[in-house]
Amino acid sequence: MDLKVMFYPESVAVFGSAGEGKLANVLTNRLLDGGMNRVYIINPKGESVREAKGYTSLAELPAKADLAVIAAPAKTVKGILEDCGRAGVRAAVIISSGFSEAGNSDGERELTETARRHGIRFIGPNCAGMVSAHAHLVATLETSPPPGGVSLISQSGAVGGSFMALAADDGVGIAKFISYGNGGDLTVLDLLRYLKTDGETKVVALYLETVPSGREFMLAVQDVSAVKPVVVVKSGRTDTGQRAALSHTGSMAGADAVCDAALRQCGAIRVDTLHDLLDVCKAFALLPPARGRKMSIVTNSGGPGVMTADRADTDGLLVGETSDRVKAKLGEFLPSFAGVRNPIDLTVEGTGDQYGQAVATALEESDVAVALYIGTPYLKAMPVAAGIASAVKRAGKPVAAIMQVGSDINESLTYLRDEGIPCFPSGERAVSSLAALARYEERRGLPYEPCLTAVGPVNEKRAFPEGEDRLLEPDAMKLLRENGISVPDFAFAADEESAVRAVRGFGYPVAVKVVSPRIVHKSDCGGVILNVADDEGLRSAFKKMAAIGEGRDFKGVVIYPMLKPGREVIIGLTSDPGFGPMVAFGMGGIYAEVLRDITFRVAPVSKDEAARMIKEIKMYPLLRGVRGQAAVNTDALAEMIARFSTLPLVYPDIHEADLNPVFAYENGVIAADVRILGK
Amino acid sequence: MDLKVMFYPESVAVFGSAGEGKLANVLTNRLLDGGMNRVYIINPKGESVREAKGYTSLAELPAKADLAVIAAPAKTVKGILEDCGRAGVRAAVIISSGFSEAGNSDGERELTETARRHGIRFIGPNCAGMVSAHAHLVATLETSPPPGGVSLISQSGAVGGSFMALAADDGVGIAKFISYGNGGDLTVLDLLRYLKTDGETKVVALYLETVPSGREFMLAVQDVSAVKPVVVVKSGRTDTGQRAALSHTGSMAGADAVCDAALRQCGAIRVDTLHDLLDVCKAFALLPPARGRKMSIVTNSGGPGVMTADRADTDGLLVGETSDRVKAKLGEFLPSFAGVRNPIDLTVEGTGDQYGQAVATALEESDVAVALYIGTPYLKAMPVAAGIASAVKRAGKPVAAIMQVGSDINESLTYLRDEGIPCFPSGERAVSSLAALARYEERRGLPYEPCLTAVGPVNEKRAFPEGEDRLLEPDAMKLLRENGISVPDFAFAADEESAVRAVRGFGYPVAVKVVSPRIVHKSDCGGVILNVADDEGLRSAFKKMAAIGEGRDFKGVVIYPMLKPGREVIIGLTSDPGFGPMVAFGMGGIYAEVLRDITFRVAPVSKDEAARMIKEIKMYPLLRGVRGQAAVNTDALAEMIARFSTLPLVYPDIHEADLNPVFAYENGVIAADVRILGK
Repeated sequence: MDLKVMFYPESVAVFGSAGEGKLANVLTNRLLDGGMNRVYIINPKGESVREAKGYTSLAELPAKADLAVIAAPAKTVKGILEDCGRAGVRAAVIISSGFSEAGNSDGERELTETARRHGIRFIGPNCAGMVSAHAHLVATLETSPPPGGVSLISQSGAVGGSFMALAADDGVGIAKFISYGNGGDLTVLDLLRYLKTDGETKVVALYLETVPSGREFMLAVQDVSAVKPVVVVKSGRTDTGQRAALSHTGSMAGADAVCDAALRQCGAIRVDTLHDLLDVCKAFALLPPARGRKMSIVTNSGGPGVMTADRADTDGLLVGETSDRVKAKLGEFLPSFAGVRNPIDLTVEGTGDQYGQAVATALEESDVAVALYIGTPYLKAMPVAAGIASAVKRAGKPVAAIMQVGSDINESLTYLRDEGIPCFPSGERAVSSLAALARYEERRGLPYEPCLTAVGPVNEKRAFPEGEDRLLEPDAMKLLRENGISVPDFAFAADEESAVRAVRGFGYPVAVKVVSPRIVHKSDCGGVILNVADDEGLRSAFKKMAAIGEGRDFKGVVIYPMLKPGREVIIGLTSDPGFGPMVAFGMGGIYAEVLRDITFRVAPVSKDEAARMIKEIKMYPLLRGVRGQAAVNTDALAEMIARFSTLPLVYPDIHEADLNPVFAYENGVIAADVRILGK
Repeated sequence: MDLKVMFYPESVAVFGSAGEGKLANVLTNRLLDGGMNRVYIINPKGESVREAKGYTSLAELPAKADLAVIAAPAKTVKGILEDCGRAGVRAAVIISSGFSEAGNSDGERELTETARRHGIRFIGPNCAGMVSAHAHLVATLETSPPPGGVSLISQSGAVGGSFMALAADDGVGIAKFISYGNGGDLTVLDLLRYLKTDGETKVVALYLETVPSGREFMLAVQDVSAVKPVVVVKSGRTDTGQRAALSHTGSMAGADAVCDAALRQCGAIRVDTLHDLLDVCKAFALLPPARGRKMSIVTNSGGPGVMTADRADTDGLLVGETSDRVKAKLGEFLPSFAGVRNPIDLTVEGTGDQYGQAVATALEESDVAVALYIGTPYLKAMPVAAGIASAVKRAGKPVAAIMQVGSDINESLTYLRDEGIPCFPSGERAVSSLAALARYEERRGLPYEPCLTAVGPVNEKRAFPEGEDRLLEPDAMKLLRENGISVPDFAFAADEESAVRAVRGFGYPVAVKVVSPRIVHKSDCGGVILNVADDEGLRSAFKKMAAIGEGRDFKGVVIYPMLKPGREVIIGLTSDPGFGPMVAFGMGGIYAEVLRDITFRVAPVSKDEAARMIKEIKMYPLLRGVRGQAAVNTDALAEMIARFSTLPLVYPDIHEADLNPVFAYENGVIAADVRILGK
C-alpha cells in the first residue's frame, strides 16, 4: 500500500471521548476547522462534536472512513484497529499513549500485529499526530502553518509543535508534518521514502533524538537527498545532552562524532537548532538552486555588511571584490559616495530602485545575494522591498532579504513573503542558509555513488577459526594480504631452523616478534626485537622469544625485514551499536592520543570517500609534506583505507581491528602492525 | 567637566532646518515626543517646530540651553560651536556629516579645536545621535526603547539602530545610547569611563569595527568590568569581513586573533551577533549574579530539554544529575511519570504550581535555572508564567524562561517581563546568556590585577647599540640573562685559543655556532656544529666557522654545553599596529607550523596570565605529560613567558624577538636559541 490514503483521506473517523476539552473533541474541532469536510467521531455513547456526527462503531457510518485518528484509552486501541480492519480502514494515526514508552511493549506489539493482519498502516502510538496541509488534514493539537513546501518528521511532538509555531510566525508553509511517536508501524524510514515522492514536499526537515536502523537510515536519506534536501537536527550531541536524551526516550544515543560522520556521509544537512532548521528549510523551499559560492552583499549600512561578510567567510561563501566591469556598471546609477567593492553600500540614501539595480547587477557575476536594509523609524522600507523583488524576478538566482527598522517594516516583510522572497532576522542567518544551498548543489553535482555500497555484493567468510575470536599476527597479516592490503614480507617460524631458513626469502636486518595467543602487548614484555643482523642474532632472538612465550602457549616467531621509517598513520575498525562497522583514520602516536585528530565513516567507504577522510584531519599537511618533505602517496593510502573498510562486510565475525602504525611513504604505504578481534 | 550635562540636560537647542522631513525637524519632534520639555530650534529663518520655538541664534534664547544638537550643514558647524561657546553651552551632539569620513579631516580638526577652546565636549560628528532614556532625552532618529539598564556605545549608527529596535521589540530597557561617529572629541574611552560611574547603566554593550588606542581601551574596559559587565561585538573578524570593514571605515582593522586575545585579557565578554548582544545584556540587566556553573533545566518536554542540555555542555554550564535529596523532594509533589534527573521533565501535564515548586527546589542545589514551557495552541501558558515568577522571588538566583506556543503566549511573555524575568526564544540562547553571567562572576571573584601592568614602572633602556637593529647571539643571550630568563652557560670566543679556554668553564661536549651579523640562518650554511667532544674537535670547529664567516664580518663563535633534549616550546614577541607589543606561546616545530597551536596576549603578562596561556594550547597535554611522561615545570615556563613579555617595555627599541626553541624539562626551562630584532 502506498501512503496516499494516509495523507489524502476524503473522510476521517476520530476515536475517543467527545467531551469538552477531551483530546478527541479537540482533534475533531481541529479537523473541521482545518477544512476536512467528512469527519465522524466514534465513542461508546455515540456523541457528536459540531458537524462531526457521533457513532459507536465504524459499522454504523453512512460511508467508509479513509483514515482513523485514535485518541482513545490505550487498552481500547487494539479493539479499534480490529474495528478498522473489519470496516476496511487502512490508515490510522494513534495519538494514544501508554505503550512502549510506558513499559507496555507487549501492548504495542499487539497493535503492530493487529494492523499487519488487517493491512493497516499507522503512525504512532504516543505521537502528536500529523498534518497534510494541501489536503486540509489537520490531525494534531500542534500549531498548523499555511500550506507550503516544507515537510517535517519529528521524533518529539513538542519540538514539532515549536517548529510549526515558528514557521507559522514566519509565514513559512508546511506540506506534511508527522510526529511518529514510538514508531510502532511507520518509522522515519518509511516516512522519508514517502516524502521523497511527495510532489508537495520541496525540503524534508527531521528532528531526531536517536537514529534508528543507522545504515538503512543513511541509505534512505541519501536516496531522498538526491531529489530534495534533508535538513536534520539531531539532539543529544554532548555527554550531558545524551544523558538527558537517555532519560527522555529510554533509548541508547550513539556517540555524536559517529552520528555526525554518518549524516555527512549520506548527504544530510545537519544544523544545530530549531531556528537554524527553519532558516535553512525556508531557503530551500523558496529559492532556486545556488550554482556556486560567490556572494554579493547589497546594504545601506557598513556595519551589518561587515558582520554578514564575516559569517560568509566562516560558512564558506565567497565575498570577493566586485570586478571592474560590474563596478563601472554600478557607477552608472550609484552616487560617488556609495561603496562598490562588495559589500555594495548604498548608504542611508539608497533608494528602492538602486537596491533593485544593484542586486541585479551584482548577480551578473555572483551566484547568490543578500540584500540588507537597515532603516530608521522615519524611513520607508516598502520601496526597497519592491526594488529587491524586481531584481529577483530578473536574476532568477537565490536572494535573501533582511529588513530592519522602519514604520512599514512588517508591511515590507509580508510583501516580500508574498513575492516568495525569504526574509531573515539577520545577515548572518541569511548567509548560513545560502551556504547550505550552495553546499547541497555542489554535492548534487558530483556523480551519485550510494554510500555503504563500496564493496558490492560479497561472499561472506569467517576470519576466525571456529570458537576463536582473535588472529595470531601472521594469520592477521595473511588475511590483510589476501584482501589486497599492502603488508611487509613476513614469515612465521615455529623453530630456530625454520626461522633461519625463512630469512633467506628477504635478508637481514630483520625484526622478530613473539607469536602467542596469550601475549597481546608484545613490546611490553620484550616480545619484539628489532635490527637483528645475522643468523646468530636470529637464533639468539628466537631463544629469547621462546623463553618469553614459555607457559603462554608459545607458537613461534614472526619475522619481518626492517622497514624504513615513514610517516605514521592509524587505520581502525570499530562497531557502533546504531550504525554498525565504522572505519577511522588519523595520524599515529600523540596526534591521535592528544589531539584526537581522527576522522570516522560508516564502513565501507569508497576510495573517493577515503581520500576525503585523509584531507579532513588537522595534521593533513604532514602527509602533503611540510618543511620541504615530499608528499606521501595519498592515493595508495586511500586505497588501503577503502579496502580495509570492507573487511567487516566480508568477514562479519570481525568486530574490531587496527593497523597501527601504517607507514606512509612517497611511493606507497605498508601496514607495519595489525590487530584483529572478533565479537 | 564631567559629562552629566550631556546626558541630563534640562534644555536642548537643535541646530538645522525646521522644514518638514528635514533632519533637525525630525530630531526636534523626537526630543519633544521623548518628553524633553525645553527644546529650541535654531536656523537662519528662526522657524519653529511644534512647541519648540525657533530662533536665529543662541543669544536670542529666553534661557540658557544645556545641550546643542547639531544637524546643520557641515560648513556651518564650526560657527555653531563658536555660538555655543559664547552662550555657555558646554555639550553638543554633532549629527552632521561631511568631516573625516568624507576626507575632510581638516574640518574635523577645526571642530575639535574650537570645542577645546570653549570647553565644549561633543559627540560626533557624523553620528546617529544619542539617548539618555531616564532623562527623557531622545536625540537620535533611531528607535528608542523604554528606560532600563542597558547602555550601548556603537561605532555604527545603523547597528545601534538595529540593536535598539530589537531591544524595543523584546521589551529590553535602555539607559544610554551613544553613536559616537567619527569620535572627533568624545571617544569610546571617554564614554566607557562615564558609563562606569553612571548609576542607571547596569551593563555596557559595545559595537566596534575597529579598536582605537588598543592598550588604553583594554585598561578602560577592565576598569569598567570590575564594576559592571562590558559585552562586545567586534566585527571584521575574518579576512573578508576585514576587507569590508576597511572599505567601510577606511581604518586599519587588526588581525582578529590579536583582538580576541586583547578582549579576553581585559575581561570583555565577546559575542558574535547583535542578537547575542541583546540576549547577554538582557540577562545581565535583569538577573542577580550567578554564583556558580551548576544549572537545572525544568521543562515539560524532553526534546527541548535535550537541546538545552547540549548547549550547556558546549558553553560550560553543568547539568549534573539531581541529588537524591532533591529527587526525594521533587517526588513529593511530582507524579511518578515525571523525570527528575535534570532535566526535570514535568511532561505535558505539568502545572504552573509544579513549575514553581520544581524551579525553587532545583535551585536549592543549582546556581542558575532554565524554565522551558512548550505548549500547544490549546494549553494556557499564564499559570506556568505565574509559577515561574513565584519561584524566582523565593530563590533569588538567575532564572531564564522560554515560553513557546499557546493561545496566551504573548500575555505570558509580557507578564514575565513585567516581573523582571528575562525570556529567550530558545533554551540554547538562554543557556549562552547564563553561561556569560557565570563566567563574569568567576572572573570577578579572582583578585583584581590590572592587565598590562605586570612589569610595574620601568627604567627604559636601549637593547641595541646606536644605529643598529639586531643583536649578535651572545649579546642577545646576555640580555636574556640580565633579565632573569634562563639561558644555557655560553661563551663567546673571537679566536681558537679563547674558545678552548672558555670551554674549561663548563666542559665537553659542546655546541659551536658561528657569530656574524650577516648570517641569520646559521644552520642553513653549516654554521652550527653539535657534540664537539674535545679541544681538537673545538679547534677544527672554530676553523670551519671562520671559513663560513669569511667575508661576512666574522666575529667569532659562541659555545654552549650540549643540552639534553626536552619538550620544545616557542615564546615570541611581535608588535600589533593597534595593541602594541604582543607575546605568543606555543609548542615548537610542526605544532606551531601545521596546527597554528599558538596563543597570544598583549604584553606584558603576569605569571598567572602566562600560566593560563600554557593551559590554552591544544597540545598542552604534551607538557602535562602523556604516555607516562612526567609533566614539565610549567611554573618555570610561566615565569619565563612573563619575564620575556616585559622586554618590549623595558627596551622600547625591541620590535620582534623569539626564543625558539625553549627546552622545557621536569625541573626547569632553558632558552636554547634567541633572535632579537629592532624596529
